[in-house]
Amino acid sequence: MPYVNVKVAGKLTKEQKEKIVEGITKLLEEVANKPPQSTYVVIDEVDRENWGKGGKLLSDL
Amino acid sequence: MPYVNVKVAGKLTKEQKEKIVEGITKLLEEVANKPPQSTYVVIDEVDRENWGKGGKLLSDL
Amino acid sequence: MPYVNVKVAGKLTKEQKEKIVEGITKLLEEVANKPPQSTYVVIDEVDRENWGKGGKLLSDL
Amino acid sequence: MPYVNVKVAGKLTKEQKEKIVEGITKLLEEVANKPPQSTYVVIDEVDRENWGKGGKLLSDL
Amino acid sequence: MPYVNVKVAGKLTKEQKEKIVEGITKLLEEVANKPPQSTYVVIDEVDRENWGKGGKLLSDL
Amino acid sequence: MPYVNVKVAGKLTKEQKEKIVEGITKLLEEVANKPPQSTYVVIDEVDRENWGKGGKLLSDL
Repeated sequence: MPYVNVKVAGKLTKEQKEKIVEGITKLLEEVANKPPQSTYVVIDEVDRENWGKGGKLLSDL
Repeated sequence: MPYVNVKVAGKLTKEQKEKIVEGITKLLEEVANKPPQSTYVVIDEVDRENWGKGGKLLSDL
Repeated sequence: MPYVNVKVAGKLTKEQKEKIVEGITKLLEEVANKPPQSTYVVIDEVDRENWGKGGKLLSDL
Repeated sequence: MPYVNVKVAGKLTKEQKEKIVEGITKLLEEVANKPPQSTYVVIDEVDRENWGKGGKLLSDL
Repeated sequence: MPYVNVKVAGKLTKEQKEKIVEGITKLLEEVANKPPQSTYVVIDEVDRENWGKGGKLLSDL
Repeated sequence: MPYVNVKVAGKLTKEQKEKIVEGITKLLEEVANKPPQSTYVVIDEVDRENWGKGGKLLSDL
């Protein structure tokens, strides 16, 4: 049943996405016995111009 | 007042989006008396390379 | 694969939740051929003191 | 620690995003003593064809 | 049309929530001409045991 | 900069939350070089009466 949303600033490679999905799914199975087939992991790659930290856009830092 | 977020893997046609928005809004009005004018429905079409299930990216399945 | 998040201000009865989950799942199956067993619907009942509209908390209106 | 997600229908200019990020970060610092360096603000510009109100897509209104 | 979700670790007072809702709504009106009556602000007060930073739960720091 | 939201149906123990936060933070550091101090992980424990799958509430299954 878990639904996991991973938001990162900027782009990830396909390989990185594969490892993130695999790693989170395995972690939730081992730690909380959540079946992989019921675990959704959705990755949002947010444009650096759309992510602010410290009052500034990351694209301006 | 309802805010509904619908995340699907892959693309929807405009007609499908129209039916989803109309259907959810009508459902919330009938079931919970939520006024259509206050009901927001936001649809996110997620790239299959960004959605994992069973530890794999959908684009790899 | 759909993940749907329904946020409403205030409480719903169990029966209302059942109808909302059933209705949204059926709608996505009919409109976009999404299999019910892969459709997650998560309902958030938000306290009226935590929902603002027009610059005011709903609990103050 | 705050994480703020701002969803708007349609596009914003870079300048508008800068003002929104700056304004929200300052507000949370003044009102709730949240340190700017720990405050994330993520802006989602949603296509008007993906945002429904009153049972209609904004792009159809 | 904006929908803003503010997640903070720990509790806020009612007065703080009022100021956050008012401030964000005014900001979006001034910066992006978003009508207050269409602006939703939802505040989530997250338990410190459910928020992790640097690999630790805030409640453990 | 990552913000990760983990939604599970039902309750987790504190120890499970610690392992989930630690594991996800370490994974994002190793896979995508994301600094732990900038990685937020927020866990939502959703009541089984508020999570639907296959058109049914989990609490009814």
